[in-house]
Amino acid sequence: MSDGIPESVTQQDRGARNHVRSDLGSAATPVTYFAVPMQQQFAANEQAVATKPYAGAFAHDPTVPLDWAKSIQDGPMSPDEANSPTEADLAALVANVDSYADSGYTVLEGPTGYVQSRMVMPGVTSEMMRWWFVWSPLESERYTLWFPQAHISNWVEDPDRIADTSLSFEERFYNNVNYVKEYIGSQALPIEIHFTTPSEIGLDEAALKAAGFTISASGYCCFGMAPEITTMLMVHLGRDTDQGMEWVSRYWIGTHPAMRRFPGGDKAAALFEKLGMDKDGLLNLAYELSVHDMTEYTNLARILPGLFARFSKEA
Amino acid sequence: MSDGIPESVTQQDRGARNHVRSDLGSAATPVTYFAVPMQQQFAANEQAVATKPYAGAFAHDPTVPLDWAKSIQDGPMSPDEANSPTEADLAALVANVDSYADSGYTVLEGPTGYVQSRMVMPGVTSEMMRWWFVWSPLESERYTLWFPQAHISNWVEDPDRIADTSLSFEERFYNNVNYVKEYIGSQALPIEIHFTTPSEIGLDEAALKAAGFTISASGYCCFGMAPEITTMLMVHLGRDTDQGMEWVSRYWIGTHPAMRRFPGGDKAAALFEKLGMDKDGLLNLAYELSVHDMTEYTNLARILPGLFARFSKEA
Repeated sequence: MSDGIPESVTQQDRGARNHVRSDLGSAATPVTYFAVPMQQQFAANEQAVATKPYAGAFAHDPTVPLDWAKSIQDGPMSPDEANSPTEADLAALVANVDSYADSGYTVLEGPTGYVQSRMVMPGVTSEMMRWWFVWSPLESERYTLWFPQAHISNWVEDPDRIADTSLSFEERFYNNVNYVKEYIGSQALPIEIHFTTPSEIGLDEAALKAAGFTISASGYCCFGMAPEITTMLMVHLGRDTDQGMEWVSRYWIGTHPAMRRFPGGDKAAALFEKLGMDKDGLLNLAYELSVHDMTEYTNLARILPGLFARFSKEA
Repeated sequence: MSDGIPESVTQQDRGARNHVRSDLGSAATPVTYFAVPMQQQFAANEQAVATKPYAGAFAHDPTVPLDWAKSIQDGPMSPDEANSPTEADLAALVANVDSYADSGYTVLEGPTGYVQSRMVMPGVTSEMMRWWFVWSPLESERYTLWFPQAHISNWVEDPDRIADTSLSFEERFYNNVNYVKEYIGSQALPIEIHFTTPSEIGLDEAALKAAGFTISASGYCCFGMAPEITTMLMVHLGRDTDQGMEWVSRYWIGTHPAMRRFPGGDKAAALFEKLGMDKDGLLNLAYELSVHDMTEYTNLARILPGLFARFSKEA
């Protein structure tokens, strides 16, 4: 039995998961569950967005890819099939995206909650996604379009810089902290996202280029109540394909030894203990994060082409 | 603003809910979310049921009526449109089932978590349902068929009596405590269900007969950790129609004044306080109970005709 995974998990047959396709080509199915606080946040967001010119993109009936929802309902994946947050494993991911299952969650050593996903977004380009990451943080209402039930607010450290169209995407976006607040499951989490250049978190930029990736929205994150302690590493990589933009995501939340290379990473263990987030708690959080990731990127893929066509000329 | 309902709730338009149909005639849609402990319980149940002759009825891909799932995703219903647990409101329910929305959850005074539902089960008869309630408690594995992700175990106070086919359904079933353990959301709750004759909980038996109801699986409930304190009233009433069996359910969990008529009901307030279950907690629990009720009865409606045909002759 692998370390870091509850015994009950390993009793299950994991064979099917490796071949799950979670791109948007699989059947879309309505979401059948939203925690009560998310239901209430939706009502508040719906009111707030109503007078905005982009209110038409506020989605009322979210759907998710059925295969994806099913694949993460069967229990955690084997940690042996996951990426760790080491630089070596980041390199393996970039070089061999196709060798990993398209969706899954589990707990790795530390303990560390883990989520992986990969999808293709028909009609979306990496240019649109770069625009989204500099346009959406400028108003919380824009941010709620992304996940109307879960997103509460976002503001950015230097709004002038992120809005400055004379700069490159990289100059506007990197090292310009996003202060987000959002529901992960029924829990509203304040998260400070430090989006950085790929190399700052240990991604090889030449390897990314060789693999065709043209956007990285990756970085390390801290909880709002302990902004000096890195608790999460997040990787989002995009590249254009004939079928649409391919989007590859990884999340590690916890105290994996490789997380110590980030600011305050050595203090994370004490923080998680103080918060009462043990292995079971991180497994639950990983599943909730997996559901969140599935829902928000499926929704974004649906609304982004229309938003880009209508609003990208102004920012 | 009504007492007992969070302010955010009343901001929402409730107009649509009154006309929601939640019977099985509406489109079935796959469930897209199961809390991690329920995923793990499913795996354990699947192993336990494998050698049973009824293992074929263990459902792997639960669906729920789409309209029903959507209706309870829009937030709590108005308490003004709910039934209270008073005898007068039980009488109003029996006399005018059609005047209430087919699904909903909210918080009433006390506070008291509240769930209502009504569905029609094609191909199911009240005779089948009576059989289910005396057949299923005899093995925990049978009980898991009902809701493979959520049901853990059940045993009954007097198994000989519930199995005695020389007695009537009522003689076998009533005042024969069911000791169930099941997940309501991510929380495993031990519940002692005191199914009683209708009159013992304040239902008028002549009125039930006049309205055509031919089964009542109703009673009061206690948590396993405080078996002398009534914390829940549960009403399930069934009658046969041309479209199948109509099934009407109500749950009240909390400290409504009318709950004091049940054993230990006057001690419930102190217990809920000790458990930290306040108004928000009971609202969450009501939604989880609503999702549970929707999922388990939708699934039971699907498997019951086949189980009855195959196994009712032996018990």
